[in-house]
Amino acid sequence: MKIYTVFVEAKTPGNIGFLARTMKNFGLKKLVLIKPCKLENSAYYQAVHARELVQDALIYDSIEEFIEDQKITTLVGTTGTAGGSYNIPRIAITPDELANNIGTGGNVALVFGREGEGLSNEELELCDVLVTIPTSDEYPIMNISHAAAIVFYEIFKHKKDYPIDEMDIADYEDKKVITKLCDEIISKLDYPSHKRKNIKIITKRIIGRAFITGRETNTLRGTLKRINNKIDSKEE
Amino acid sequence: MKIYTVFVEAKTPGNIGFLARTMKNFGLKKLVLIKPCKLENSAYYQAVHARELVQDALIYDSIEEFIEDQKITTLVGTTGTAGGSYNIPRIAITPDELANNIGTGGNVALVFGREGEGLSNEELELCDVLVTIPTSDEYPIMNISHAAAIVFYEIFKHKKDYPIDEMDIADYEDKKVITKLCDEIISKLDYPSHKRKNIKIITKRIIGRAFITGRETNTLRGTLKRINNKIDSKEE
Repeated sequence: MKIYTVFVEAKTPGNIGFLARTMKNFGLKKLVLIKPCKLENSAYYQAVHARELVQDALIYDSIEEFIEDQKITTLVGTTGTAGGSYNIPRIAITPDELANNIGTGGNVALVFGREGEGLSNEELELCDVLVTIPTSDEYPIMNISHAAAIVFYEIFKHKKDYPIDEMDIADYEDKKVITKLCDEIISKLDYPSHKRKNIKIITKRIIGRAFITGRETNTLRGTLKRINNKIDSKEE
Repeated sequence: MKIYTVFVEAKTPGNIGFLARTMKNFGLKKLVLIKPCKLENSAYYQAVHARELVQDALIYDSIEEFIEDQKITTLVGTTGTAGGSYNIPRIAITPDELANNIGTGGNVALVFGREGEGLSNEELELCDVLVTIPTSDEYPIMNISHAAAIVFYEIFKHKKDYPIDEMDIADYEDKKVITKLCDEIISKLDYPSHKRKNIKIITKRIIGRAFITGRETNTLRGTLKRINNKIDSKEE
């Protein structure tokens, strides 16, 4: 799947830079500018290590021209005001619904803009899908590069395995060992049995919730064993 | 639940503005600045309709001072490089894991910064939870306001999905008591001092990360006291 990021009639060069940076943060490379402002220094400055995306941006006079030239299969429009006053009322899906449904083929274009005004009714009509980000009613208008970051993030999230999968989270067996050691200690604390049971459940739950790493498990296991031994040596 | 957004040693006034705007987009109001740059016009300009958040920002000299003053129960650090070269290796959770576990009680602080460098090891040590955004390996360093937008979005999204159920998260004092009791027990386990210190840090972190409720705190406190007494009666 090819994903194009389209910025319609950019007015602020800095926003082009921010958009390029955010694209690269999420592995996107194809920037398209429709009738942009002049690409001043601030566009390159805000792009930081994504300058080449600004340099290589494709520039068109209209969305239609771009669609035709790049053979776009799915045009995704973004809007701050879902289901608004368009000629044909439509609903907008959320970024994660988009990411779930975007598939893995074709040439997809994500269309952002215009700063302040949004896309025109005609542009929205061209879109196959509309996406809107759930925001506070009090101030729903986001900066375009921040809105884009959220859409990119959702697509990236669904596409890639989380780094956390590669990380060393305590596995099922590790957690069992820790819970068992806690249970042993709790059993030695002279609680009445109903109370003991409650305490064991609470402990188990806290352990389950704490994202303990494999390494932390080792430390914890050692500490819990020592507590156990201390109590045992008392009992003898 | 109160959520504070903390920006550590902001260098670029524009980023303060972008952060404030994004906060308001997701219904967050409490901005905290630790040793910020001068609040020039661009901070207010980029905030657009969130200027009052910049005007009302709380300013502190250190994170510690802020934690103490606002009685923060959960300090959430953000990092681009999870599980890096810290003294004690740690894992970072993703924004949606954070949003899933953040509960609805207590005073939570989301800490962002520094631009370019990230948080220091000492600051990361203070944090109960670390969050990292899954990004492209080729260019993982995001602008701080874009990273923040994604964290805010996930929290906002989960808040909407799961109607607020009043969970009573352990407060600042409760957590202090639990941590102190754990420290007392660990001190009695004949560890060499450097190891003891590590174990105390790990324990504190697990407690911080587990979003323990007020009720669970009561149970835990009782259990930890009993363990303490058991060990003490042995020592006499």
